[in-house]
Amino acid sequence: MERLAEELFKSVQSKICSDLESIDNQKFITDIWDRVDHDGSPGGGGISRVLTGSVFEKAGVNFSKVYGTPPPQLAELGCEGRFLATGVSLVIHPYSPMVPTIHANFRFISVGEKSWFGGGIDLTPYYLDEAQVRRFHQTIKECCDRHDLNYYSEFKNYCDKYFYLPHRQEHRGVGGIFFDYLGKDESSEKYFNFVEDISRIFSDLYLPIVIENKDLEFSDEQKKFQLYRRGRYVEFNLLYDRGTKFGLETNGRTESILMSLPPVAHWDYCFDVKEHSEESKLMNVIRRAVNWA
Amino acid sequence: MERLAEELFKSVQSKICSDLESIDNQKFITDIWDRVDHDGSPGGGGISRVLTGSVFEKAGVNFSKVYGTPPPQLAELGCEGRFLATGVSLVIHPYSPMVPTIHANFRFISVGEKSWFGGGIDLTPYYLDEAQVRRFHQTIKECCDRHDLNYYSEFKNYCDKYFYLPHRQEHRGVGGIFFDYLGKDESSEKYFNFVEDISRIFSDLYLPIVIENKDLEFSDEQKKFQLYRRGRYVEFNLLYDRGTKFGLETNGRTESILMSLPPVAHWDYCFDVKEHSEESKLMNVIRRAVNWA
Repeated sequence: MERLAEELFKSVQSKICSDLESIDNQKFITDIWDRVDHDGSPGGGGISRVLTGSVFEKAGVNFSKVYGTPPPQLAELGCEGRFLATGVSLVIHPYSPMVPTIHANFRFISVGEKSWFGGGIDLTPYYLDEAQVRRFHQTIKECCDRHDLNYYSEFKNYCDKYFYLPHRQEHRGVGGIFFDYLGKDESSEKYFNFVEDISRIFSDLYLPIVIENKDLEFSDEQKKFQLYRRGRYVEFNLLYDRGTKFGLETNGRTESILMSLPPVAHWDYCFDVKEHSEESKLMNVIRRAVNWA
Repeated sequence: MERLAEELFKSVQSKICSDLESIDNQKFITDIWDRVDHDGSPGGGGISRVLTGSVFEKAGVNFSKVYGTPPPQLAELGCEGRFLATGVSLVIHPYSPMVPTIHANFRFISVGEKSWFGGGIDLTPYYLDEAQVRRFHQTIKECCDRHDLNYYSEFKNYCDKYFYLPHRQEHRGVGGIFFDYLGKDESSEKYFNFVEDISRIFSDLYLPIVIENKDLEFSDEQKKFQLYRRGRYVEFNLLYDRGTKFGLETNGRTESILMSLPPVAHWDYCFDVKEHSEESKLMNVIRRAVNWA
């Protein structure tokens, strides 16, 4: 299963990178890196790919496979033995405020006899196109439903809870799905099948939105609103994101972990949106959890 | 002592704001806010002052006095009883990369029978003027020495340890001093006298540097380096700063707490400085703790 997961995640990375390249006419750069475990022995490594283009201001798509001493967080969960984590993780920050930022992550973790899948996909628009958001959720739901009729609502709720900034009383964006410990109690190919399916629909979920919106006109004010909202992305990732903390605490590669941060972000004291504006439409849907599908 | 500390911090806030206004020809705006304690009763409040000018891209100088239920962190320290915290806290982000960012914070905390002072001042340059940094440290040392010959080295080392980003293996800047729990075991006017002295030298420490550097020419590349380094400021404040976490977890006013974040910050994947450049001079001194005084 480790090899199967590793091959899937590498293949997902390649496919997504070439799909994004075809829209931007820019190439990803590739960094291959090795990780040293806490005891100095080889601890795996990864392939970091980054594109800086005109459609995508910063797109980072990481593959990694790390192994060695189980991190303390897993020991606390009662997991002991050989540790391995492999996954693909991406964040795409488009230049245009009309194109949403997207994050996705799929991972397989194994400690001793136990193993499980985790991951998710979530969308962070700056200007709200409700039809697009509904389609995004609907496509994810259809994929979930092919595997288990409970998945979508369970994973959608987990996503709403996870990508939440309590100090702002805001969700990070319009959500998606988030799941963890899938298959922990009963290792089975069916979980792999689900992760394969959901990770392979990424381009179908995101690229149509990019293509529809990338040439829409926008004003300086709209760009400014995007930069301000990106500040929230930074706040979430550095204050709350478990993956970021986990990576930084377990001797991960800092530049690959923090590839998720936007290229530029603004913080304006007490910035607020005008009532009944396009910006207020976004704020209204991120201040509560909405049923999109 | 509470009243004495409160009056000192309010007066320090006023003095610093008017000193900064005199350099920028811009006025601070003032926001007065109230805090509600966890049980719904009045919990104090504060005066947030912000200036957006041409010399200072964002200068935030906060006064606050909050009281009520002791936060859990203090209960863990064995502190019980009525809780009060009053302080002044500031971060100044100049527009020019030739002018360093500065942070200072002075606070008085009282829980039941115990009370103490905490605080510090630290400097974060983008382009290094070693003579200025030495003078900065020397002036702080002279102030410390007037009160206790051990203060400077003790508080300087604490500052170097505290303002450190382990995931980058970098200090936030060139340090200064940082102290906490001063007077906890022996409440005495001498601690107040020290805090009064050190908080009142702020303008003498910082304004000469601003005046000397604010009209120096700089290139777009130098501005870009500042924006990149500001990313580190964001990383420190959101990942590690105890005051930020404490504030966000204890129902503090988010906009006042996060006033410390720069107006604009950049993250560039694997950005690095050229050997023997002005930028590399800075990197050399923030990768180790330097004895400046």
